[in-house]
Amino acid sequence: MKLGALGEDRLLNRILLHLPRVRGGKVFAGSADDCAIVEIPRSKKYLVLKTDCVVEGVHFTHGTNASDVGWKAMMRPLSDFAAASALPQFALITLIVPQQTKVAWVRGLYRGLRGATNRFKVSIVGGETSNTPGPIAISVSVIGFVEKPRAASRRGGRSGDDLFVTGHLGGALKRKHLKFVARIAESRWLTKNFSIHAMMDLSDGLGSDLPRFARASKVGFDIELENLPVARGATVDNAISEGEDYELLFAVSPSNRKRLEREWRCNFPGLPLTRIGSLNRKSQVANRKLPRGYVHFQQPR
Amino acid sequence: MKLGALGEDRLLNRILLHLPRVRGGKVFAGSADDCAIVEIPRSKKYLVLKTDCVVEGVHFTHGTNASDVGWKAMMRPLSDFAAASALPQFALITLIVPQQTKVAWVRGLYRGLRGATNRFKVSIVGGETSNTPGPIAISVSVIGFVEKPRAASRRGGRSGDDLFVTGHLGGALKRKHLKFVARIAESRWLTKNFSIHAMMDLSDGLGSDLPRFARASKVGFDIELENLPVARGATVDNAISEGEDYELLFAVSPSNRKRLEREWRCNFPGLPLTRIGSLNRKSQVANRKLPRGYVHFQQPR
Repeated sequence: MKLGALGEDRLLNRILLHLPRVRGGKVFAGSADDCAIVEIPRSKKYLVLKTDCVVEGVHFTHGTNASDVGWKAMMRPLSDFAAASALPQFALITLIVPQQTKVAWVRGLYRGLRGATNRFKVSIVGGETSNTPGPIAISVSVIGFVEKPRAASRRGGRSGDDLFVTGHLGGALKRKHLKFVARIAESRWLTKNFSIHAMMDLSDGLGSDLPRFARASKVGFDIELENLPVARGATVDNAISEGEDYELLFAVSPSNRKRLEREWRCNFPGLPLTRIGSLNRKSQVANRKLPRGYVHFQQPR
Repeated sequence: MKLGALGEDRLLNRILLHLPRVRGGKVFAGSADDCAIVEIPRSKKYLVLKTDCVVEGVHFTHGTNASDVGWKAMMRPLSDFAAASALPQFALITLIVPQQTKVAWVRGLYRGLRGATNRFKVSIVGGETSNTPGPIAISVSVIGFVEKPRAASRRGGRSGDDLFVTGHLGGALKRKHLKFVARIAESRWLTKNFSIHAMMDLSDGLGSDLPRFARASKVGFDIELENLPVARGATVDNAISEGEDYELLFAVSPSNRKRLEREWRCNFPGLPLTRIGSLNRKSQVANRKLPRGYVHFQQPR
């Protein structure tokens, strides 16, 4: 059997990695989550690790501005740090490029990478470059820490929790996917001020990501489609299916709703926070309030 | 200008990375060294980070056994941990593969990756898979720790130090480059029992790596070519130029020589340890005791 027949990449990860328990320590979140979050001896913080890559012809096209490619390559794993409410600290870069790549392009790439690390005070501490006969690929690993009580993962959502998303969904492929800023400030504020039960970043689209979130939390969900914060110029379909939004999705007790909405508006006046639905007991309904046609948008079974 | 015109990959790294100081902490070794070695708050250990990759058509051929590819992809960064005398703890894997890759091949790859991590009690805590129109590439990041007094880097070699190498050099392309075991046990033993002034792993060949080592330590070197531990079936030329040896090169005070050689033989009876020369003051000589023809084998100037 070939990989293409297995379906999406993340499925592959789950099938093939079968990760063992972390040796000599506890793991708070593993490879199926946005970041790996692991205990280290004698520390009040977890060590947080994430690797991600962008490939020419898959995540960006030949003509994409090199600096934008670098920005996106770094912001993607940083967005996973936002999902974990972790502070990124160090980055390692693997650059796989053909010999005929222009030096100016690589300089542009690093300008974008550094722009993104500067934004969050991350230090690029290592890099490796390899020749390739194929397309350009950039792999970025980010390492950081999170205070144990503030670590967030996809697990932990409870039946009855409100579901919130930051920002707008849909239409990101036009421009936002190359310009987005990881929601680390927002995520850190959330876990400082509220008990966030579960959180993830939306990279593949709500229609793919929400079922993963619910599955990890072992709950079902109700979505109020009429309340989705659809981006200007985008449709509900775009908001569900396009992906590349890099917004936060999180679950929090409804007892927090009023204070959360009020204090959010004061702290992040330019960024909407929208309650899009709630979590429920898994067995309750399937595809509740979801129109037909969104084949990805399935309740976990 | 195109990358090919810049020469070797590591040069590119140095030109383009221009790494800034690590924010909010001290850096013991940076990107020009085998690993990044950085301080973390309130810890007696350094955090050690390394990323590396192997690419089809560059580091392995289409027909190479998948398990061997996985083993090599993991052992290469682990060999850099040996150079730092650090204990690897976690690994992240980025797998960039075409859709038509066989699932059995990827399973074989992970068997090799896991074989290598099992050898050193490393936990694979995360992975990302991406589609590519090009050749297979595997990027591995390894994270671990080293007690501050035992951290080794290329810097620190002193004029007058003895230069030692482990094992044999040359002939590694036949088989050893897919089967080698990172010299972590040996490296840990060395820094536990001796003051190792500087250390690196030999991946590009002594002729390329020793000048880097000397440059980082700001010293010159004398090599006794007749003493090189040339592998059976290999020539002195192979031992200097081929690379892929993954043996340790280190500098230690000559006052340790007798005890080091005696205790090494007791602890690692199957593995030779050879004094191949010494470090000297940089200005003293150029290309001393080196035959003509080894164009890479230059004293640092």
